[in-house]
Amino acid sequence: MKPFVSKSNLIPMYHQIANHIREHIVEGVLQPETQIPTEEEIVRDYGVSRMTARQAVTQLVQEGLVYRIHGKGAFVARKKLERSLNRLNGFHQDMVGLGLSTSSKVIGFKRRKPDQKEQHVLGLNRSHYVFEVRRIRYVNDRPMGVQSFVVAVHLVPELEKQDLENGSFYAYLQSIGRALVRAEQRMEAVLSPDSAKLLGVSESLPFFYFERISYDKDDQPIELLHSYFRGDQYSYGIQLGE
Amino acid sequence: MKPFVSKSNLIPMYHQIANHIREHIVEGVLQPETQIPTEEEIVRDYGVSRMTARQAVTQLVQEGLVYRIHGKGAFVARKKLERSLNRLNGFHQDMVGLGLSTSSKVIGFKRRKPDQKEQHVLGLNRSHYVFEVRRIRYVNDRPMGVQSFVVAVHLVPELEKQDLENGSFYAYLQSIGRALVRAEQRMEAVLSPDSAKLLGVSESLPFFYFERISYDKDDQPIELLHSYFRGDQYSYGIQLGE
Repeated sequence: MKPFVSKSNLIPMYHQIANHIREHIVEGVLQPETQIPTEEEIVRDYGVSRMTARQAVTQLVQEGLVYRIHGKGAFVARKKLERSLNRLNGFHQDMVGLGLSTSSKVIGFKRRKPDQKEQHVLGLNRSHYVFEVRRIRYVNDRPMGVQSFVVAVHLVPELEKQDLENGSFYAYLQSIGRALVRAEQRMEAVLSPDSAKLLGVSESLPFFYFERISYDKDDQPIELLHSYFRGDQYSYGIQLGE
Repeated sequence: MKPFVSKSNLIPMYHQIANHIREHIVEGVLQPETQIPTEEEIVRDYGVSRMTARQAVTQLVQEGLVYRIHGKGAFVARKKLERSLNRLNGFHQDMVGLGLSTSSKVIGFKRRKPDQKEQHVLGLNRSHYVFEVRRIRYVNDRPMGVQSFVVAVHLVPELEKQDLENGSFYAYLQSIGRALVRAEQRMEAVLSPDSAKLLGVSESLPFFYFERISYDKDDQPIELLHSYFRGDQYSYGIQLGE
């Protein structure tokens, strides 16, 4: 008798069980901070061995969806931090809005000539200079993303590294009369081994990648921003239509 | 003399070169369908061996950013398909707007009781029934995403599988006087081994995950939609502010 599936198509039992529980978490049937089925319950409900039940839970722990409390069981991890795409906010503003504290580590700050794309996007030429600033952004001391932005030196001639260590660059722009009023943004879902390395997370972790061009009230392009934010920490909400 | 970096911090040369070229692609300095530096040029410009140059290009090919043409060299892959987050469009409408043809394969179509979350979101109770529809979505015959939606049976009592094989569910809703006018949407960047398997792509490929709740003109919630779209194929654009 021929087997009706080839061996290469078989999905291990622990993987199927993890998929099933993950679906319940992702779709909100299992809410954050609630207990997922215990190993005993998985053994009973799915008819598998204790070892297989443990493997299923371990997979979800490794994905960051679930955490274990010794002697108590496994619980659904806190929801991702939700940011809104209906507002033109910086990272700092959004996190403060969620009641969280932020900090930044400047890992690059240089003055240089703009490249071709930067000239085009920011309306500059080879006679101009730009600041390129690269920061790791933290929430309650956890590294959440890597951002780098480019801004023309003549627009922010006094910009210093210490303006960027603690505060918001958007607030800084506002303070010098260059408040941002609109932006064009493109989002991608990517792997970013470089960002993962900087943040100390697995290279297989998906990131949101954003490219944002921001304008002031005179429609002058001010900032070209590239951001990588951890896919396991953030979700983005938006109201469509109307 | 102590080495000034520890060995575990060393980044292989091919990896650094790939990072450098990737940056040029992601940031648009190297445009789609243009040739990236040849192996000879990499050998010359970076002072590395031919083998290292080849490894760098191979890494970019594996990431899908670059494709090789035998005897000609390596070229930047076509840009991701850009969808707009400023419009309430379905997949079919967006792709047709880009001049592409779409098709769907219905891989699940059932009538069942709504779960707790579906009851809450769609304003139903245990006496109602829902259709649950799961489709693989194709563009020019390439599998691009997996979508499943739930809709109350009493709102679309005549819905049949063949309505969903070719056309747009949003157009169907319009045709029966239930056009969607607004939606709440949440986006995540995730790994989705199940979707990857259904689409025949690597399990390490990042996906956009969307959850969308759509409403008609009477603010009646109509559809709860879960979508997984390939991160290597799509980007999402949005205008913020103003």
